[in-house]
Amino acid sequence: MKIDGVSYRSVWINEEDGWSVNIFDQTLFPFSRNILRLTTPDDVAHAIRSMQVRGAPLIGAVAAYGLALALRNNASDHALETQAAMLAATRPTAINLRWAIDRLLTYLRPLPEQERVKAAYAEAGKICDEDVAQNEAIGRHGLELIRDIASKRKNQSPVNILTHCNAGWIATVDWGTALAPIYMAHDEGLKVHVWVDETRPRNQGAALTAWELGGHGVPHTVIADNAGGHLMQHGQVDLVIVGTDRVTRTGDVANKIGSYLKALAARDNNVPFWVALPSTTIDWTVSDGVKEIPIEERSASEVTHIAGRTAKGEITSVQLVPDGSKAANPAFDVTPARLVTGLITERGCCPATTEGLRAMFPENQLFVPEFDGLD
Amino acid sequence: MKIDGVSYRSVWINEEDGWSVNIFDQTLFPFSRNILRLTTPDDVAHAIRSMQVRGAPLIGAVAAYGLALALRNNASDHALETQAAMLAATRPTAINLRWAIDRLLTYLRPLPEQERVKAAYAEAGKICDEDVAQNEAIGRHGLELIRDIASKRKNQSPVNILTHCNAGWIATVDWGTALAPIYMAHDEGLKVHVWVDETRPRNQGAALTAWELGGHGVPHTVIADNAGGHLMQHGQVDLVIVGTDRVTRTGDVANKIGSYLKALAARDNNVPFWVALPSTTIDWTVSDGVKEIPIEERSASEVTHIAGRTAKGEITSVQLVPDGSKAANPAFDVTPARLVTGLITERGCCPATTEGLRAMFPENQLFVPEFDGLD
Repeated sequence: MKIDGVSYRSVWINEEDGWSVNIFDQTLFPFSRNILRLTTPDDVAHAIRSMQVRGAPLIGAVAAYGLALALRNNASDHALETQAAMLAATRPTAINLRWAIDRLLTYLRPLPEQERVKAAYAEAGKICDEDVAQNEAIGRHGLELIRDIASKRKNQSPVNILTHCNAGWIATVDWGTALAPIYMAHDEGLKVHVWVDETRPRNQGAALTAWELGGHGVPHTVIADNAGGHLMQHGQVDLVIVGTDRVTRTGDVANKIGSYLKALAARDNNVPFWVALPSTTIDWTVSDGVKEIPIEERSASEVTHIAGRTAKGEITSVQLVPDGSKAANPAFDVTPARLVTGLITERGCCPATTEGLRAMFPENQLFVPEFDGLD
Repeated sequence: MKIDGVSYRSVWINEEDGWSVNIFDQTLFPFSRNILRLTTPDDVAHAIRSMQVRGAPLIGAVAAYGLALALRNNASDHALETQAAMLAATRPTAINLRWAIDRLLTYLRPLPEQERVKAAYAEAGKICDEDVAQNEAIGRHGLELIRDIASKRKNQSPVNILTHCNAGWIATVDWGTALAPIYMAHDEGLKVHVWVDETRPRNQGAALTAWELGGHGVPHTVIADNAGGHLMQHGQVDLVIVGTDRVTRTGDVANKIGSYLKALAARDNNVPFWVALPSTTIDWTVSDGVKEIPIEERSASEVTHIAGRTAKGEITSVQLVPDGSKAANPAFDVTPARLVTGLITERGCCPATTEGLRAMFPENQLFVPEFDGLD
């Protein structure tokens, strides 16, 4: 997507040296834009852990490049396995990270050491290109949902879409998942308006989604995370679209903390609740999302403090809670499949059910009847 | 309640002059404590609008003193009516404000002008004393609910209570509504732990409830508003207790924005959702809370900016959203009665239904069968 008229992806090979990896430091959005050059797997691990890069698809892509950087130093079997394990452990909830690392391992293990570096870069590049193509397809399929609502409008009011966290182009390599349909709807002249949940504690909505949408000219309004239920009660939300960090084979959806509350409100008010994802986000090994998906507990300081820009233009962190008060910070929650209207994948929309996913991805090995019988 | 060992109410007559009205400037909590002296009805209106005083019961009590201050200047019928209307219009959602002003008007109108000032102070004082007594009774009734859960515990784990916003002693004249049972449980040695929703956008949970609980030594943990559903899914919340700004005669509950989302999560996870209120918070004239209760829309700047303390100890406001992004800020939502386990009133606990309220407050005139037939 474009920033000030220039096209970017959210990760790319440094143009000058041809091997290091460039990203935006997303902790500095929306108030400044800083490109970071990553040169070692430790740089990559730090960028993922500190959320300089975030978003399930983007984490996977950057981790793949992290393994390529590791192999430049040492392409032995031992290095391959230990560096892969180190990168896979940087964050626990998003499945794309594990998927990307596993894909590279499967591809690289049989190769001789001297071919591994080049092959790793090529495969990481393929992961990026496939992510872009998948997200574009997600956008086209999701666009139909928005078009459908717009076509039934009797007046000129916009289609109101609520989203949580950031599942936009900077959460992926390009286009985004949840925001891809919105960009396409806006581009083809449909009137859309986005309610942007600020998404405490890290405010990915207020800081990233609002910045993305503003940059693309999409009308939007930032709201406190508390406000969505009230808006739905009063008919001000036509549909919800969110991204996800992991979907079980039964359709349960792990996503940024608070998504579950919005799904409950959507159900209570007959508002469709859609989840947009590339199939790399599906964890075919898990059937009960609430019981089985590990939920990352992040630093309490993300709750007790918040950063923003002062009137003087300085970025400052301020403390919000009294000295001595503790805080807890679970980063994700799981929305049970029963609350999900459907999944928007690169192959089309399907119900958030075992049957829906089986029909959409029949090639998946874990869907043999014996396996399902174990659930 | 006590601050640093000294007993306070949250509004009182200035000890030195015997007529002006003292409050804490609650916009400065938790980082500094500043007592404001209010001398005119405009001071009072400003304090209510700017949320230097807030909390439905406290607003009513302070507004009553505001009318007393007004009458010191001019106790004519005209002044009485216009100043009462001015004070009643300061905030739209909390019904206690209108109730307190109406009570004073009813009492003062028949009196000769020269008796009105003294009578207004006396009646405002009675409102305060009654509020304290009612909240103490609410605390005793709510305590039974906590005791009941504690008595069924097989281990020594605390009773985990989630609350939203601040319905503590500084939201009332003393004791609080939702927090009164918690203070009493803690005082009698029951093990309790409170999950404190930070309550964006104004953070009354992080800034006020955490400060109150910490001051009283009650174990508590601040969480983002997004986290409550996840905690309930994982059995970490035994009950929810919130306050309210207005309850309809059918049991619908207006409270701080986001309460509805917690009620949905509580219902989805079989967690009891209780609402604590003095009967002055009941609006007997309203039957459909979602359709009829006016919801205050506050300044967008409460969403786009937040204040906190810098590492240097300065209180600073920081901007959270990109330049050019709009924000919306509905301050309350309505939880339908069907999601409310029950109401904790000064007379005891009752179902959040017309029948429950009728049985608890049979003297209410609006409960004649003819009137109910109009619903």
